Amino acid sequence: MKNTSIGFIGLGVMGKSMAEHLLKAGYQLIVWARTPSKVREITDRGALPADNTAELARRCDIIITIVGFPKDVEEVYFSDNGLLANIRPGTLLIDMTTSSPSLARRIASIALKHGAQALDAPVSGGDKGAQEATLSIMVGGDQTAFDRALPVFRTMGKNIVYQGPSGSGQHCKLCNQIAIASNMIGVCEAVAYAARVGLDPKKMLTSISSGAAASWSLNNLAPRMLSGNFDPGFYVKHFIKDMTIASESIDSLKLNMPGLDLALRLYRKLAEQGYENDGTQALYRLYQ
Amino acid sequence: MKNTSIGFIGLGVMGKSMAEHLLKAGYQLIVWARTPSKVREITDRGALPADNTAELARRCDIIITIVGFPKDVEEVYFSDNGLLANIRPGTLLIDMTTSSPSLARRIASIALKHGAQALDAPVSGGDKGAQEATLSIMVGGDQTAFDRALPVFRTMGKNIVYQGPSGSGQHCKLCNQIAIASNMIGVCEAVAYAARVGLDPKKMLTSISSGAAASWSLNNLAPRMLSGNFDPGFYVKHFIKDMTIASESIDSLKLNMPGLDLALRLYRKLAEQGYENDGTQALYRLYQ
Repeated sequence: MKNTSIGFIGLGVMGKSMAEHLLKAGYQLIVWARTPSKVREITDRGALPADNTAELARRCDIIITIVGFPKDVEEVYFSDNGLLANIRPGTLLIDMTTSSPSLARRIASIALKHGAQALDAPVSGGDKGAQEATLSIMVGGDQTAFDRALPVFRTMGKNIVYQGPSGSGQHCKLCNQIAIASNMIGVCEAVAYAARVGLDPKKMLTSISSGAAASWSLNNLAPRMLSGNFDPGFYVKHFIKDMTIASESIDSLKLNMPGLDLALRLYRKLAEQGYENDGTQALYRLYQ
Repeated sequence: MKNTSIGFIGLGVMGKSMAEHLLKAGYQLIVWARTPSKVREITDRGALPADNTAELARRCDIIITIVGFPKDVEEVYFSDNGLLANIRPGTLLIDMTTSSPSLARRIASIALKHGAQALDAPVSGGDKGAQEATLSIMVGGDQTAFDRALPVFRTMGKNIVYQGPSGSGQHCKLCNQIAIASNMIGVCEAVAYAARVGLDPKKMLTSISSGAAASWSLNNLAPRMLSGNFDPGFYVKHFIKDMTIASESIDSLKLNMPGLDLALRLYRKLAEQGYENDGTQALYRLYQ
């Protein structure tokens, strides 16, 4: 297995840690990124550089991508120099970007025409989960492709769940973001209400953080709101991207999700005020 | 201390368990309720019955109330036969109903004129927390009254926090409900989205329940939504009452909390459809 050569595209905050786990596990790792310094950092640790995505595609058995936006995914997969035009038959493509379910299905169907397989496998757990290899990985695609990828996923994550056919991993990640979206509003409003009526918001959190109001966001992000720490754990701009994908999917299904609509509207307002590079807890700014 | 006679008004699901803990702790307990069968259940265990609220008021050192709606609190405290007109000087009144902060302040100020003290001390933790004496108790009023009540609170709860002057306990409980309100929308929308796009919602929950989307409501109520179990843990009608109190408080402060507004609108719609005696997870009905 460790003779497998894995291509890796997308050495951002998440991707960098994930690539390092693959190296540590003994895989031959071939990397490409737009920024030379990011490539150097990982080639210094034993990865091999590729000249471009086309060359990377020709050299690898498995290729992992984790880039920014759906348009970046489209470029990496569909351009002339991209993966799909250059992979060898039998290649396994794994997109771990949070992207759209329909794009995931398109990639999988074209991969099939090239005799290759594709999985959508977005993650949650943030930079900390990536560093500690405790990511939750939500996987869509053929079960055989999932089985083939599982040892690779196990080097990066803990909660690895096969969700169903192509696009299912992305759909599941959207569920995650939909649940978080409305909850962020509730956390902001609880903290803002406490502050405005003259409670000590920390004492308020002591009372409510272990009961029916408890949530990851309340317990982890409310204290950051209170201390004015809006540093990015997860960027506002990326959350807006995810909610936009969810919203488009919801519209196409003719569903009505007023909580997501409201969250998207509030986060877009926050971005318009110049805070798109803050962390998602900066939603609290709208309530101050 | 155990010579203290405690009056108890409100032997509902919560109150019944709380009263039993006081009996077990050795307090002399004097009870009154509208429904004779509820009184009998607890007098069979050693509590003494009162003829009416006025007579109860005259016999007790500490009086605990946990009734349904603010109008019930008003009747118990302000009517001619009510507590305030009949208490002895030195009495400690503790309202554990989730009610309005302004009503709590009104009770405290009139109690003071009678040489008595009053605390607002709403709880969270539900019937299970009441049974197991693990309630979270959020307390507003004078610190001296809090200190006096603490041994009593310890028989019923675990997370007991002094929040500040009269009304602060109620304000804190409203923070709890405000946080839950928006989160319930997010949980419903995540589950509904999964079901509509053809995911296995249980697998979806396996993927997202331990990460940044995790919450008490997701982990405890989403599985009930999926199995169509809308039995009340916490009634829709009581949640609407709490959100209405919060909404009125927010309006009076000229604040804007669009998440709470949306939740209140959705829950009122649910009640209009005839589901006010369901549990709060029945919000999922609107998405089915």
